[in-house]
Amino acid sequence: MTERTVYCGLVNDQYLGKEITLKGWVQKRRDLGSLIFVDLRDREGFCQVVFNTERLSKEDFELANLIRSEYIIEVTGELAKRADDQINPQIKTGRYELYANSLTIYSRAKTPAIYIENDLDVDEEVRLRNRMLDLRRPKMQANIRLRHKVTRTIRNYLDERGFIDVETPMLTKSTPEGARDYLVPTRREGGAFFALPQSPQLFKQLLMGAGIDRYYQIVKCFRDEDLRGDRQPEFTQVDIETSFLSQREIQGYIEEMLKEVVKETRGISIQEAFPTMTYAQAMEEYGTDKPDIRFDMKLKDLSQWAKTSEFGVFKNTVSNGGQVKAINLKGLADEYTRKTADALVDIVKPYKAKGLAWVKVLEDGFNGPIAKFFNGEDQVLIKKRLEAEKGDILFFVADQKDVVASSLGALRNHLAKKHALYDTAELAFLWVTDWPLFEYDDETQRYVAMHHPFTAPQNDDVEALKENPADAKAKAYDIVLNGYEVGGGSLRIYQREMQDQMFELLGFTDEEARKQFGFLLEGMDYGFPPHGGIALGLDRLVMILAQEPNIREVIAFPKNGRGHDLLTDAPSIVSMDQLAELHLKLKGSD
Amino acid sequence: MTERTVYCGLVNDQYLGKEITLKGWVQKRRDLGSLIFVDLRDREGFCQVVFNTERLSKEDFELANLIRSEYIIEVTGELAKRADDQINPQIKTGRYELYANSLTIYSRAKTPAIYIENDLDVDEEVRLRNRMLDLRRPKMQANIRLRHKVTRTIRNYLDERGFIDVETPMLTKSTPEGARDYLVPTRREGGAFFALPQSPQLFKQLLMGAGIDRYYQIVKCFRDEDLRGDRQPEFTQVDIETSFLSQREIQGYIEEMLKEVVKETRGISIQEAFPTMTYAQAMEEYGTDKPDIRFDMKLKDLSQWAKTSEFGVFKNTVSNGGQVKAINLKGLADEYTRKTADALVDIVKPYKAKGLAWVKVLEDGFNGPIAKFFNGEDQVLIKKRLEAEKGDILFFVADQKDVVASSLGALRNHLAKKHALYDTAELAFLWVTDWPLFEYDDETQRYVAMHHPFTAPQNDDVEALKENPADAKAKAYDIVLNGYEVGGGSLRIYQREMQDQMFELLGFTDEEARKQFGFLLEGMDYGFPPHGGIALGLDRLVMILAQEPNIREVIAFPKNGRGHDLLTDAPSIVSMDQLAELHLKLKGSD
Repeated sequence: MTERTVYCGLVNDQYLGKEITLKGWVQKRRDLGSLIFVDLRDREGFCQVVFNTERLSKEDFELANLIRSEYIIEVTGELAKRADDQINPQIKTGRYELYANSLTIYSRAKTPAIYIENDLDVDEEVRLRNRMLDLRRPKMQANIRLRHKVTRTIRNYLDERGFIDVETPMLTKSTPEGARDYLVPTRREGGAFFALPQSPQLFKQLLMGAGIDRYYQIVKCFRDEDLRGDRQPEFTQVDIETSFLSQREIQGYIEEMLKEVVKETRGISIQEAFPTMTYAQAMEEYGTDKPDIRFDMKLKDLSQWAKTSEFGVFKNTVSNGGQVKAINLKGLADEYTRKTADALVDIVKPYKAKGLAWVKVLEDGFNGPIAKFFNGEDQVLIKKRLEAEKGDILFFVADQKDVVASSLGALRNHLAKKHALYDTAELAFLWVTDWPLFEYDDETQRYVAMHHPFTAPQNDDVEALKENPADAKAKAYDIVLNGYEVGGGSLRIYQREMQDQMFELLGFTDEEARKQFGFLLEGMDYGFPPHGGIALGLDRLVMILAQEPNIREVIAFPKNGRGHDLLTDAPSIVSMDQLAELHLKLKGSD
Repeated sequence: MTERTVYCGLVNDQYLGKEITLKGWVQKRRDLGSLIFVDLRDREGFCQVVFNTERLSKEDFELANLIRSEYIIEVTGELAKRADDQINPQIKTGRYELYANSLTIYSRAKTPAIYIENDLDVDEEVRLRNRMLDLRRPKMQANIRLRHKVTRTIRNYLDERGFIDVETPMLTKSTPEGARDYLVPTRREGGAFFALPQSPQLFKQLLMGAGIDRYYQIVKCFRDEDLRGDRQPEFTQVDIETSFLSQREIQGYIEEMLKEVVKETRGISIQEAFPTMTYAQAMEEYGTDKPDIRFDMKLKDLSQWAKTSEFGVFKNTVSNGGQVKAINLKGLADEYTRKTADALVDIVKPYKAKGLAWVKVLEDGFNGPIAKFFNGEDQVLIKKRLEAEKGDILFFVADQKDVVASSLGALRNHLAKKHALYDTAELAFLWVTDWPLFEYDDETQRYVAMHHPFTAPQNDDVEALKENPADAKAKAYDIVLNGYEVGGGSLRIYQREMQDQMFELLGFTDEEARKQFGFLLEGMDYGFPPHGGIALGLDRLVMILAQEPNIREVIAFPKNGRGHDLLTDAPSIVSMDQLAELHLKLKGSD
């Protein structure tokens, strides 16, 4: 085995006229009788190799004749400039070709199950089953390397500022609060289970109690939730915690770090501070707690007007405590027929909206199924409120407040994407702050923590919290990027009295709190400093930086949408012996 | 909350005469009536704070009176030089004291369950139960930070050389080969289980097949083995794999990286190449595959001589295919009475040695229970062979080869430690190479892979492998430090034909091989480059660098020796509902 001189994709003038050795995968082979051309690929790119009978021994030329796509070979030869008319300006090394003097074939290859090309029109399941081949595609290689660049930038940023990388346990305690745990049965303690961590939350708080002062970890977390497009059973979190810093200081570090990541990976220097919006404003104007601010089209509240409207549906909804809100799709009325506009109701239905109303704005008034309900004054008012003019189309939802928000928020995102109202390369960060401390859980009819039960309230007047839990605000902050939540953080409760009262407000008995969080409470008894932090979703962040549509594109070996690993076929059946050792049996297996 | 000016442990001349703010934990408080002295601690060290009634408001002085050990406080005041006779040269900041102008108490604290001091005489279980307090001890903080420094150095080294950090799955497929898996039951696929990875071995090989070329990951791995002092159910591996490199090149990178780690963490520049020893030599001269070469005391083979010895036990052992070997504890004969020398048999008993014989070397001959069996010629021969002289004491074991090796190897380590024959601060790296490819498993009466079934043989003549499996050598290399295996690596099989034959030699049916490793075999069909790598045990490496006796000292939240987390009390019982969702029930729970 000769040492590689340089990667295929990095050959340059310094090697011209020299004998060099390349190693890589055969992308393509063209056969011209006594001449064989091969595009040789490695992780850095391509180099054209020429095999001819003049330079090669008879044996080696015969070998060259055997080469097929995806064979892995080593070639030693002389690097030359291509003739002017042979230059390929599309690729970095398009000015060179290597005249082979000798050849080694390391591995032959079956005809690949998928083409090793960026533009691949094949079902994702086929890609996942053939992930090794899929990862050979330059685009996937770029995604994997981008991911590494992101983590490296984050690590460098935090290392330089005194953050200490501390590993927390993967085999830990099951805590029923939050999402469902993945459990790990044990052999030594029959009937006892570890849980895989949903996040290192409690451990990082203990590390603050231990005086680590600044902690971080890039760490796998696990939630046995029902899966959605951008969820995986295991995901990676950039977990950060600090002591003695204010919310402003913590946000400052995270913002600076994210700017550094954007600069290193996308070459963009973001100069301005990330905008900030309260949770209330986000819900009011965007119908979501993670607004995509790359485009406008804000939700406008028409409830005041609707009270006096002639349109019974609007009027009644407001009288019954609901809302009427609308958005304005500017200048695109002509894109819609009555049929296609009506069809948009399918976008809002999953959010339980009972209907979607719309009008087009013409030169001389509104047009559409419900236009007749708007008198002249209505039209003036609404045009003013929605900054509407000829050529716009307005969409209305009348419903309960949360339904209006989620359905119009979803429609807003749908329309913006459909009509390309934003630059897909843009990166629009946004802080969302002043979150409610609690949310009401209809199922259990009680208040639950909106983030987690360790989030500090903005007002530590416990009586006030008790009286008005719905109005209580948390010292919590989310970082949103292009409409995705990429991170959430808060200042934490650091005093035992407050934590006890929080558990009480959340309906925990002392017994329950002690059983689940005893070690945290005991830690607090020995003193916690004021502390707070954040957890960023690495998969999602990289997905957005890579401009990919889902996180599976930035994970080397992901599960599919049903949580199954198609490459290794996991999860899978294990032997009865294995189960017996764990003191378990399957239900219905007697 | 005022911003911290500087860490307590980092105050220096530049702050003299200035008003600064410190935050930290109260180490100690001394009360002199109108003067209160406090040693304030943070992660960087200590600073003395003086509270007096001149500077402080009455309220703040009263507050200062409330302070107890481990309270967390913020102090703003003026930094001054101590009077010459007050300087404490033991600590970095011993020349300074801070005259407090104001005081905030963030957290009170119960009397700590353990002292926050380096020298702590308390049961380890108490420390583990109170791990947050334990981690406040400067020594533990230093260990945790050393660990981070090691990973940072490794990452920087590998990043600079084009290694790509790729995350592999934590929820993966159970493969019965190797140690016992930790299983993770699934809710969505009843009766199916994920397994936690024992190592990312197969995935990193696929990454080589995908053309990643250079991969690394610092990653948690899991083995459900019976625990020993330096084992944990979860442990951290520095996992590395490369394509197209020779064994020499791979070892070169690892060696350079480890030298960098030693330099960064211990300030030692190792100039010489790490010594190399074959497996056969290690077993022959040290009785172990991980020799501690900080001291000599090699095992000497006396079997040739024993054949003709008058000592029946020795003679018969050799006639029955066994060995007689001895070590020489130089100059320490006087340390042993007959009783204490005889008692050393307890050291070799766990290794199944039937006995331990010894003689002291006197001016005029051997002395001891078996001295009479050595005639004059014997004594000359043995003194020559063991380089023995007056004052030495020689220990003999006569037994089967493997018993001799393990028992004398263990005795050698025991004696060296007991008599401090090495400098505990020394770092003695050693490569052990030319490993057997197979080892014979008495239980199943077949050959099994000594490393794993993907290790490349040195001789790829399959017929030869079949005929003499016991003699087959692997392209495998271990890195040993101070008698601990800190890493093991190999070149891998990269061609399907060889891998098939290897599985056949190991007694796998085609069906079994396909079921367990099908995705690897299929990958090979699409072509693997020549590749190889290594896995380093991070916990053990850091333990040795920190000069700690066990890996729990360098893990923030370890399990105890029985695999239980005393801090959180995990594993623990989970609810029947949780089990039911996983389609499981406990055995005997009907």
